[in-house]
Amino acid sequence: MNVKITGTGCYIPSGVETNEDFHQHEFLNADGSPIKHNTDIIIKKFQSITGIDERRYAEAHHSSSDLGFFAAEKAIADANIDPEELDYIIFAQNFGDVKKGAIQSDAVPSLASRVKHSLRIKNPKCVAYDVVFGCPGWLEGVIQGYAFIKAGMAKKCLIIGSETLSRVIDKHDRDSMIYSDGAGATVIEVTDSDSGIISHETATYSYDEAHFLFFGKSYNQELSEDTRYIKMYGRKIYEFALTHVPMAMKVCLDKSGVAIQDLKKIFIHQANEKMDEAIVERFYKLYDKEVPEGVMPMTIHNLGNSSVATIPTLFDMVIKGKVENQEIQKGDIIMFASVGAGMNINAIVYKY
Amino acid sequence: MNVKITGTGCYIPSGVETNEDFHQHEFLNADGSPIKHNTDIIIKKFQSITGIDERRYAEAHHSSSDLGFFAAEKAIADANIDPEELDYIIFAQNFGDVKKGAIQSDAVPSLASRVKHSLRIKNPKCVAYDVVFGCPGWLEGVIQGYAFIKAGMAKKCLIIGSETLSRVIDKHDRDSMIYSDGAGATVIEVTDSDSGIISHETATYSYDEAHFLFFGKSYNQELSEDTRYIKMYGRKIYEFALTHVPMAMKVCLDKSGVAIQDLKKIFIHQANEKMDEAIVERFYKLYDKEVPEGVMPMTIHNLGNSSVATIPTLFDMVIKGKVENQEIQKGDIIMFASVGAGMNINAIVYKY
Repeated sequence: MNVKITGTGCYIPSGVETNEDFHQHEFLNADGSPIKHNTDIIIKKFQSITGIDERRYAEAHHSSSDLGFFAAEKAIADANIDPEELDYIIFAQNFGDVKKGAIQSDAVPSLASRVKHSLRIKNPKCVAYDVVFGCPGWLEGVIQGYAFIKAGMAKKCLIIGSETLSRVIDKHDRDSMIYSDGAGATVIEVTDSDSGIISHETATYSYDEAHFLFFGKSYNQELSEDTRYIKMYGRKIYEFALTHVPMAMKVCLDKSGVAIQDLKKIFIHQANEKMDEAIVERFYKLYDKEVPEGVMPMTIHNLGNSSVATIPTLFDMVIKGKVENQEIQKGDIIMFASVGAGMNINAIVYKY
Repeated sequence: MNVKITGTGCYIPSGVETNEDFHQHEFLNADGSPIKHNTDIIIKKFQSITGIDERRYAEAHHSSSDLGFFAAEKAIADANIDPEELDYIIFAQNFGDVKKGAIQSDAVPSLASRVKHSLRIKNPKCVAYDVVFGCPGWLEGVIQGYAFIKAGMAKKCLIIGSETLSRVIDKHDRDSMIYSDGAGATVIEVTDSDSGIISHETATYSYDEAHFLFFGKSYNQELSEDTRYIKMYGRKIYEFALTHVPMAMKVCLDKSGVAIQDLKKIFIHQANEKMDEAIVERFYKLYDKEVPEGVMPMTIHNLGNSSVATIPTLFDMVIKGKVENQEIQKGDIIMFASVGAGMNINAIVYKY
């Protein structure tokens, strides 16, 4: 018995926000003091580290659950299944639905319930819930669906990752340029074929690390203390990720029994280009290897970091031939890996 | 192999809010018009339907994750395990952490991560995530932990349900009197004994029902449209619950193979006394039976409806001898059942 991805889909919002669009922003240091460089230099430096040229923002009348629904529709069509056959809809989110211009998160009902409603699924045995697990939420949703299938509680699961980070950013924080909106979705099914999930690995580091990513006040100290935004200690996250993510990836690969040279692609959370490259470099270094060219498809340049949505979006785009010079073949061994708020890390080794 | 509850704990906030305390409230109809009865009559009628005399509100400096942590500490002590041995911390929540006086929900990092941090657990293999599933979230967390154990992915899980509903209520809505704050927690473990979970059942009804419980604007039309509160269509929920919950309970009991006369207790979500009584009456009617006296322990009179926290709190109190005239013996067959936003329903049949 294997568990296989049988359909993928993504929704990329049409609103393009370029780095140019941030030139009017007044970026401040965490203590509220002005940054000594001018905005042009700040943006250039930002681009060279993160690799981000532009990102996507959802249309004003769409919420995260809408984006998730659009991606889900495509994944279901791609899997060519009757949605009534789904046993689970698992929606990975961290901020719920945030209406444009509002500051409240709304997760009542769960975003999974909203998607199920929009999909017009009647079957009450299709269980819809949200998982909150930082950026690795979509990948963890896949692992949870895998557990339900292994436990005999499900045969087909839909896992969605969607976020509208544009609605929770502090415009006075340089990191606001990282965040993007988007959604990806995947159908997984029990299968008799030899492809599917080979191994998985998850870790939560919260002893010292719980608040490396957090919901905090604006760097503009004149703004209300009561309005919070997505915030990060970037340097701490970078060091944390480089210490722990390569090792978790190695544990996962070693569990799978696959040799490092047989790994064809790594679909890594699109967090920050330099960080992602450093993680993958260290991962290969654990095997005394150089990073093979093209092993790590990237979409961050144009799509930014849309949290839970990056991996399912990237994977969908690669298998649909939408990422230049990137493709995978049936039988290829690939890896998914993510890191984010919690701090959580996870990985899956998968035979395509 | 069975999966057994080996420890329980709850945290009941010290702040008592009596029905008297609502006398100053200006209750309005959903359209903003004044209610024709005076507040005294409104409160009496409310009391006679819901059974609620008083409810608990968390202290100003505590958030939902703090309450969850207090309950978790007790459950771990009760299970007599080393917290480092936990494979999962599953935190059921619907509004994240809401600071007193603020309106934003905060779930970055997840509340499960915060609890893990507070418990000073170092083991990174202890995976901490939140589940959003309406009021049945704690029970669904137990079912998810059960799945991880069955799939060979875990041996010990901590499942927490915590909510501070006092922070999301509309004071102009009579239903605001229903909601309460609290937390319950449970440790489940794989066991060779013959006690444990016998059967489980979950359903999500979202075709017409997704928005029966929702986040909506105040009945006071002078207040900002942008500030949302917990809202419900009480009549619709009542009819929905009476139609679907007894049947789900029957499906679960029939799956277990246990005869109705062998069922000793029903631990039902403390939603509303009259509704809970009507659900259990219909459940027995499906077997042509009368409701046995004392089968349904209740805490709603003094504790109100604390969402995900009601069942683990109630269960903890009964087994610790804190609910008058209620006790369970080793070997007793009991049922847990819940209904809430989604709309979600679930049940577990369990041998104590």
